Amino acid sequence: MQSPFDRRIAACQRRLERADADLVVCFPSPNLTYLTGFEESPSERHLLLFVPDTGDPALVAPAMYEDQLSELPIADLRLRCWTDADDPLETAENVLTGYSLGGTEPATVLVDDRLWATFTQDLRELLPDAEFGLASSVLEPLRIRKDDVELAALRRAGELADRISLEIRTRGDDLVGMTESELASEIDRLLVAAGGEEPAFETIVAAGPNGARPHHHGGSREIEAGEPIVLDFGAFVDADLEAGTGRYPGDQTRTIVVGEPPAEYERVHDTVKEAQQAAIDAIEPGVTAGSVDRAARAVIEDAGYGDAFVHRTGHGVGLEVHEPPYIVAGNDRELEPGMVFSVEPGVYLEGQFGVRIEDLVAVTEDGAERLNDTPRGWETGC
Amino acid sequence: MQSPFDRRIAACQRRLERADADLVVCFPSPNLTYLTGFEESPSERHLLLFVPDTGDPALVAPAMYEDQLSELPIADLRLRCWTDADDPLETAENVLTGYSLGGTEPATVLVDDRLWATFTQDLRELLPDAEFGLASSVLEPLRIRKDDVELAALRRAGELADRISLEIRTRGDDLVGMTESELASEIDRLLVAAGGEEPAFETIVAAGPNGARPHHHGGSREIEAGEPIVLDFGAFVDADLEAGTGRYPGDQTRTIVVGEPPAEYERVHDTVKEAQQAAIDAIEPGVTAGSVDRAARAVIEDAGYGDAFVHRTGHGVGLEVHEPPYIVAGNDRELEPGMVFSVEPGVYLEGQFGVRIEDLVAVTEDGAERLNDTPRGWETGC
Repeated sequence: MQSPFDRRIAACQRRLERADADLVVCFPSPNLTYLTGFEESPSERHLLLFVPDTGDPALVAPAMYEDQLSELPIADLRLRCWTDADDPLETAENVLTGYSLGGTEPATVLVDDRLWATFTQDLRELLPDAEFGLASSVLEPLRIRKDDVELAALRRAGELADRISLEIRTRGDDLVGMTESELASEIDRLLVAAGGEEPAFETIVAAGPNGARPHHHGGSREIEAGEPIVLDFGAFVDADLEAGTGRYPGDQTRTIVVGEPPAEYERVHDTVKEAQQAAIDAIEPGVTAGSVDRAARAVIEDAGYGDAFVHRTGHGVGLEVHEPPYIVAGNDRELEPGMVFSVEPGVYLEGQFGVRIEDLVAVTEDGAERLNDTPRGWETGC
Repeated sequence: MQSPFDRRIAACQRRLERADADLVVCFPSPNLTYLTGFEESPSERHLLLFVPDTGDPALVAPAMYEDQLSELPIADLRLRCWTDADDPLETAENVLTGYSLGGTEPATVLVDDRLWATFTQDLRELLPDAEFGLASSVLEPLRIRKDDVELAALRRAGELADRISLEIRTRGDDLVGMTESELASEIDRLLVAAGGEEPAFETIVAAGPNGARPHHHGGSREIEAGEPIVLDFGAFVDADLEAGTGRYPGDQTRTIVVGEPPAEYERVHDTVKEAQQAAIDAIEPGVTAGSVDRAARAVIEDAGYGDAFVHRTGHGVGLEVHEPPYIVAGNDRELEPGMVFSVEPGVYLEGQFGVRIEDLVAVTEDGAERLNDTPRGWETGC
């Protein structure tokens, strides 16, 4: 029986042929995980997957992975391991020689978008006449529409983040006096205790003026009553693939206040909440990603906070926490059923506070399904 | 006063001139941290440091980082931020136009060795006539010799890992019945409680036959008495730089047994221990990295386990857990004072067990200083 990875590799090969390209080269990255189920951090060791337009895929890998890789459920994979005493480029060259790349034309090689420059340079030396492009040109259209297994995993990741979000919100007064770091650690602990594999990104706890920095992570600031707190977190859950790995993240944000918020706060919070709803209302197949950004931005601009919404409205999620489609001004990409992305407008007032509200949504046949569904207000302790 | 980063950027520029190259381009990576103190994960957002051979360095970055980046202690840094509504490539192009790259010759651009292919492709489009190389050609000679601040941090990271290593070893019988994952979590907890920033890599706890897989991480296997357990871990500690960040890792391995080891075990363990000592004895300025590998490998080959030592003897550590110099067969790189690397021979017997013993060492004027110093035997509970 074909594994999910056999099917994905075959789909990649069909797209290679259609694009008149000869070869995809992946290295440890979400593309490699998507095509093989193998998950590892990038490192200086040559670990390269070759998928030719016709012929068998091959994996050039350090010998220390041989046991693990020989178990990959991919029918025609040729495993070519090298030891530290070998030259991995010779192993790669042998694989390349076995393919008939390009015929009489220069070959077109599509490298993993995240391939390190050092490995791209190696490939350029091995294939001096080839033209180089990016693997995303054939892999992104496959990865951007989530299948049922992927959607199920993303829903579970959403429920998990929701559970912890509610738990933190109900603690109310107990949050006062904790440092941002302490609360971030506590959130991470809860995410894993509730069944998450690990936090999907560095948990953001940003209190008071720190909230005005969208990517501030938890620091030594003690949370005070009356201080808006931006909480942005999620955990990976394993997809229920028949074999192999593949982890899908949660990613949601709530901004809460213990006690009474500052003067301007409620107006800002309501604006962001309304902007988020407007963006979600705008989602359906066929509309552009840019128009969803526009819908959120219009609400915030109308309220006079346009300059304080300093980032895009959202990003796709899947094997990556940030992946296409990007919900950003000017993105003409049309939404399709099965796309999953965040909708997370924010307003950041330097020196005062920030507000961000984020849910993941899946595009359906006629609209959007929210994958997060906890209260979006600022009130705590209830 | 010049910051450490001013000095490092100036040194980079001197090396660029000497190499007759025009520009270094870094993105979030240890190179960027080394040159600026700024530490962030790579992402799909354009965040690029440009260091020209003459002229001021420039940082093209998402606007959301503006506050943080404007505080970098680098005197002449030009910060050029872009918002999600801008085209970051226009911002990059404006920076490049401000430099006189290459004069009448094609420019030589050295990109971060870890620069993602997607960004390299962007740069190739912006500079179609340029020749591309790797930033390591100028940065590696700077980074490979650790200065006093870096050595002090690496010593602290070594002491920290040693403390936890001893703690685990003395637990003896208490380890039996724990799963590998549980013990790995416990080690991670201890590393952070003892002052580590976070584990420097995924902690390896590999019991019994799992130990024969050099990169097996903790799984659900329960540790049994009489089973060799490979424990490979370390945590990052912050360097005491006057400003900015910069984290240096610990990395040590011990293989221990609760109770009585299997029949062949002691012979293998003694062989690995002897091989490690032989490698360390071989270290002094002027000898090659390859000869250190040879010294370890000779001992293991003489004992008849040559085929079971499936990896190199060691890797440099610094801002990266794996960086040059690589202690591997054929590496003619001569050792210099200030280099720091692991010495970690191992023997892996498929289906039975593995043994690895690892310390970090710093090359001194006349030999090697071990940065780890806990017992290297297998005995526990004492």
